[in-house]
Amino acid sequence: FPIPGRTNKPRIKGLTMVIDKGLGLVSTEELLNVAGDYIDYLKLGFGTSALYDEDVLVKKISLVRSCGADIYPGGTFFEVAWLQNKVKDYLKYAWHLGFSAIEISDGTVDMGYEVKRNFIVMAKDMGFKVITEVGKKDLRDMPDLNKFIRQVKKELDSEADLVIIEGRESGKGIGLYDARGNIRKDDFAELLLNTYKMEKIMWEAPLKKQQQEFITLFGPNVNLGNVAINEILALEALRVGMRGDTLKNTLSAGEFLQCVLI
Amino acid sequence: FPIPGRTNKPRIKGLTMVIDKGLGLVSTEELLNVAGDYIDYLKLGFGTSALYDEDVLVKKISLVRSCGADIYPGGTFFEVAWLQNKVKDYLKYAWHLGFSAIEISDGTVDMGYEVKRNFIVMAKDMGFKVITEVGKKDLRDMPDLNKFIRQVKKELDSEADLVIIEGRESGKGIGLYDARGNIRKDDFAELLLNTYKMEKIMWEAPLKKQQQEFITLFGPNVNLGNVAINEILALEALRVGMRGDTLKNTLSAGEFLQCVLI
Amino acid sequence: FPIPGRTNKPRIKGLTMVIDKGLGLVSTEELLNVAGDYIDYLKLGFGTSALYDEDVLVKKISLVRSCGADIYPGGTFFEVAWLQNKVKDYLKYAWHLGFSAIEISDGTVDMGYEVKRNFIVMAKDMGFKVITEVGKKDLRDMPDLNKFIRQVKKELDSEADLVIIEGRESGKGIGLYDARGNIRKDDFAELLLNTYKMEKIMWEAPLKKQQQEFITLFGPNVNLGNVAINEILALEALRVGMRGDTLKNTLSAGEFLQCVLI
Repeated sequence: FPIPGRTNKPRIKGLTMVIDKGLGLVSTEELLNVAGDYIDYLKLGFGTSALYDEDVLVKKISLVRSCGADIYPGGTFFEVAWLQNKVKDYLKYAWHLGFSAIEISDGTVDMGYEVKRNFIVMAKDMGFKVITEVGKKDLRDMPDLNKFIRQVKKELDSEADLVIIEGRESGKGIGLYDARGNIRKDDFAELLLNTYKMEKIMWEAPLKKQQQEFITLFGPNVNLGNVAINEILALEALRVGMRGDTLKNTLSAGEFLQCVLI
Repeated sequence: FPIPGRTNKPRIKGLTMVIDKGLGLVSTEELLNVAGDYIDYLKLGFGTSALYDEDVLVKKISLVRSCGADIYPGGTFFEVAWLQNKVKDYLKYAWHLGFSAIEISDGTVDMGYEVKRNFIVMAKDMGFKVITEVGKKDLRDMPDLNKFIRQVKKELDSEADLVIIEGRESGKGIGLYDARGNIRKDDFAELLLNTYKMEKIMWEAPLKKQQQEFITLFGPNVNLGNVAINEILALEALRVGMRGDTLKNTLSAGEFLQCVLI
Repeated sequence: FPIPGRTNKPRIKGLTMVIDKGLGLVSTEELLNVAGDYIDYLKLGFGTSALYDEDVLVKKISLVRSCGADIYPGGTFFEVAWLQNKVKDYLKYAWHLGFSAIEISDGTVDMGYEVKRNFIVMAKDMGFKVITEVGKKDLRDMPDLNKFIRQVKKELDSEADLVIIEGRESGKGIGLYDARGNIRKDDFAELLLNTYKMEKIMWEAPLKKQQQEFITLFGPNVNLGNVAINEILALEALRVGMRGDTLKNTLSAGEFLQCVLI
């Protein structure tokens, strides 16, 4: 491959998190056959996991885990459980269904960081991989940059396995993205300068241009999330330089990209 | 669920109409297994139903109906049949294939309302559920607002089961949507003030922001159409409040949304 | 059908080239069952063919060929092979896997036309159908119009079976498309006035409005490429006039479209 150094499963960096909006069992099996090597986390988007037959859901979870990927329900679910004061029940039920990871987010609700952190610990103790998310789903609720960076740091210091930087499914007008989906470079640079443990960060990057930019910046083994089901191989091709965009970057740099930061 | 009151199948309000652009039999079965409870109408988009093997088409129709959903070919088909003076043959053939509903539209041709209404009655008499559509496919052909509202009223007074407000597959620059897919609020308000039998209206709302706006306005049981195959669970999550967007609305309203208008 | 004259398989004009980003075997079979008659070429997009299990890949290639369609790996692959000085090996391996066509492109690298032409001849001699591409993947690398037209002519005069005009997967800001995906009419007219053997040209036209414009201009049997998997039937409906857009053109012309140029 033009860009060397891509990690293999089970990988601890270069993770790909895929957003699933409702594949059936046959399609899930198909997906895993073709792209299983390139999926590390599969998220059942939004609250969709509540809309499956339990029987189908359990089988689906088992399928995904059998190919060495983690699977978890969307974070909205946790937030609703918190609103209903049923987080413990929620975690138990998710464990019972077979989910191996859990998202602890406060994208829509305000719970205060100490509360959130307690839930992170609670979920870790139960055996989950814990994914926490920074960034509000509504841009108007976004904290200013300094506060945002402080939040990212707190999360990086927490017991969570992965810290997701919110990008939503659309990738536009949210987090570090402007209304057209471009990365707001100044804010991004500021964040990079002030953080560490970058390998715990996963960037939600649903748009190809975002994936491309992160790969150009961080190399093939950057953690990327909210990847669409039918874009998994295309992303992997980007990672290893088998696509015009990253191939060109490779060439114009006069040498193969190295994973500089990660 | 955060938003209560969502109807179950067979439902008479809160209908979801899905646009199918050519799923095979296995995929159709998959779709119905996962999302069958959330599909009320399945439309074979455009003239695609003419492009299937008849054998495959008959099996597909039968599959969809067996899960309690109605299925019908795109309206362009009817318009072509009308141009060829073969509406009766078309309806008979559609019935023979197993279609349970039919769209009577004049989005591309001009047939005059009395003619259209006669076909509505003809189709009803044959046993079809009849879906009629208001709005031209080309914005330049759109009537002015008053005429548009008069048309909507006529359709609501007709024998049709559902009156669809045109949104196309793109949801942009058509009907009540501006070029960016936002609802033109003044025109929309004017329409609402001048209509009744709202439960007979189905809004073609292919974009998430449109679905979200309609759900915020009318509650979970608004009729929405032209929903993409892979967005059905996501829409259902929106309806019941299991997605950041509608969850947030629910919270900021300080109480659970009620279905105010429907 | 409203627009007559659509060709059948095996067709030499009116070709549809589909971009596949990673369908599994079951989905491929499904696709061919439903839309096989409307697929002439299937491209495994970007470098994705390197990401399949060889076993799955061979079966997939065989499936596609059994329905009378040609299949080939994305052109980036060839460019990487050239960079690594392994074109011959690449072609042999592709033939061994069962690919029936091959893309010889220089969208990302600069190899000079004579070199490129030698590879076209080499691939033809091995038995491949050869597809060559004009247009750089990065707009900043695009030659001026006169040079572009000269390149197109050279390719049309070469031994290649098809000359593709680059449109990428996005269809925006590339080749003859402006940033919004509209055809730059002046450049396009200039190209048309200066070329011949139009039936060897295939236009990459991923967006519906582009497909519609080409069909309006050239009739149903224009060669169109980079069609998304789930848009094949919709495109075919456009071709035969079974969709509002082309139906309307047909009507407003006062007569059925004829294939004027092709």
